[in-house]
Amino acid sequence: MSELRTVEWVNGHVRMIDQTQLPDRFVYVNLTNYRQVSKAIRTMIVRGAPAIGVAAAMGLALAAHAKRNRGRERILKELEVAAEALRASRPTAQNLFWAVDRVVLRARKAGVSDDVADVVVKEARKMAEEDVEASLSIGRYGADLISDGDQVLTHCNTGTLATVSYGTALAPIRTAVRQGKRVRVIATETRPRLQGAKLTTYELLSDKIPVTLIVDGAAGYVIRKGMVQKIMVGADRITRNVVANKVGTYLIALAAHANNIPFYVAAPTSTFDLRHGSEVKIEERDSKEVAYINGKRVPPKGVPVYNPAFDLTPVDLVRGFITEKGVFAPDSLAGQSMALQA
Amino acid sequence: MSELRTVEWVNGHVRMIDQTQLPDRFVYVNLTNYRQVSKAIRTMIVRGAPAIGVAAAMGLALAAHAKRNRGRERILKELEVAAEALRASRPTAQNLFWAVDRVVLRARKAGVSDDVADVVVKEARKMAEEDVEASLSIGRYGADLISDGDQVLTHCNTGTLATVSYGTALAPIRTAVRQGKRVRVIATETRPRLQGAKLTTYELLSDKIPVTLIVDGAAGYVIRKGMVQKIMVGADRITRNVVANKVGTYLIALAAHANNIPFYVAAPTSTFDLRHGSEVKIEERDSKEVAYINGKRVPPKGVPVYNPAFDLTPVDLVRGFITEKGVFAPDSLAGQSMALQA
Repeated sequence: MSELRTVEWVNGHVRMIDQTQLPDRFVYVNLTNYRQVSKAIRTMIVRGAPAIGVAAAMGLALAAHAKRNRGRERILKELEVAAEALRASRPTAQNLFWAVDRVVLRARKAGVSDDVADVVVKEARKMAEEDVEASLSIGRYGADLISDGDQVLTHCNTGTLATVSYGTALAPIRTAVRQGKRVRVIATETRPRLQGAKLTTYELLSDKIPVTLIVDGAAGYVIRKGMVQKIMVGADRITRNVVANKVGTYLIALAAHANNIPFYVAAPTSTFDLRHGSEVKIEERDSKEVAYINGKRVPPKGVPVYNPAFDLTPVDLVRGFITEKGVFAPDSLAGQSMALQA
Repeated sequence: MSELRTVEWVNGHVRMIDQTQLPDRFVYVNLTNYRQVSKAIRTMIVRGAPAIGVAAAMGLALAAHAKRNRGRERILKELEVAAEALRASRPTAQNLFWAVDRVVLRARKAGVSDDVADVVVKEARKMAEEDVEASLSIGRYGADLISDGDQVLTHCNTGTLATVSYGTALAPIRTAVRQGKRVRVIATETRPRLQGAKLTTYELLSDKIPVTLIVDGAAGYVIRKGMVQKIMVGADRITRNVVANKVGTYLIALAAHANNIPFYVAAPTSTFDLRHGSEVKIEERDSKEVAYINGKRVPPKGVPVYNPAFDLTPVDLVRGFITEKGVFAPDSLAGQSMALQA
């Protein structure tokens, strides 16, 4: 699983694993323009903050590539239009905005003799490589926190499928297993989209790492019962005060705190947004994601649904942030702003 | 909805609402022997601790009624056999054991000139009536805790369908609404069996009480966001130290505590088991309840599932226990042992 690429530039197209079809079918989709990429992010063909970031960069690469013979100004203009569409695809993941800003800035800074389209494509591909390197580095730093025999609880999917490859919160688990440690995982199913049940179990099964599935509500019970030694989750945005991550994360962090179980957040520095405090836009998704399961309506007709996709966990519930640059304590976040975002 | 009876003795049979068919179909099932009742409890045709208790009593009534012309000893012997089968149907709800013990004891104490079968049937029917009275009383005591304009979060189903009628945690909400207070409800869907999505929304919709459905993981977010003024849940067993209730309750209690939102447990005194401390048998149900939704498997084949049906919430996270005898603080539980179980 960790050899695969979730998002990749292939012969002038963008190839993605269609995550909405897993675990029933493993299929790639080929995207040829930025509008398809924006839609793929919105419909969660690609999801996971780092993967979304690289997908957006690849969307901009497609936009620039499509206008590659039309001159610098035309390309820069097209990039602005594409950037707006991509930024509007989903509101919470910091990596999306970070990636779009970085690519647009790189294009603007291209030398007059540079082929701007080529610069943009190279930058997007470089970001994909950097994301893999960041995941591997998160794996190395995070593996030091895992002991032989640990059972680690995780929420949502934070593996290869949430990044370009290898993962955020699953990376330390993978690396610890490669180091010969015996590690077992408890995966929450992660309603409403069931990324834990569908994607995390799929990845761990294919890596032969023992995994047990629970409903989200059972996380408190297994933590209080002493079945879990570590908790590792990913993040969609980390500010000075809060971690925005898949809805349900805050409850797990509270249970970890109440039972003195270390709760770690694993994320590349591109997920950090340290200019901000507590204000994070939380995406509210379609009520159908909750009301319909496998195409069948669950509640009676006429029942309104509130479907926030993320929640906010105060950083003081986090034991440490595992990044590609090392592990940081929550009280060092403000001071680390330069180091983390350099 | 609150005019209906979940479990009722009708012409020598036991009539139940088949809760596994709701909200798609409202159908009654007629049960004619205790083995059917035991199976109905196990398969959750009837569920909710108080409803399970009365159903078990009705199962014993069927056992006694079947042997009504066979003499006292034969009836008492049949009651022992039926009691064993009913006790084995589900392990956690205290009301089940309370009800079986009460009926068996009543039968044993019947006078020599009494018709024992008749005594048992009358006791079971009396317990059904008492359960309705207890629910109404819980409603009156609990309604005092609800203010005009409150949004109340609840978990699982604690309404008419969890009792003989009216409910435990939904009873205060119903009574407050009848008193003219504007009350809105947030219902968690309650994986894996989805009692919140299927039953609670159904009951509240039919009572025209505004209800919004969320996934279980979103409870922390809506509590932290200030969308909830009170939390009311039911219980399957309350000991001196812990509340056993539907899995997920503990996480909600932690979020309530962290955000200083009152967390109430509503239950009749038949749910209290104050001889015990922290040791409660937590039922582990079939992995298929989690792995299959609407008949379709969610995770890849080969993934193990851990499916505890309940969790344990320390009583110090509870603001008050709403019973038919009044509202009790958690630190008064040990001292209230006589009053609560008299």
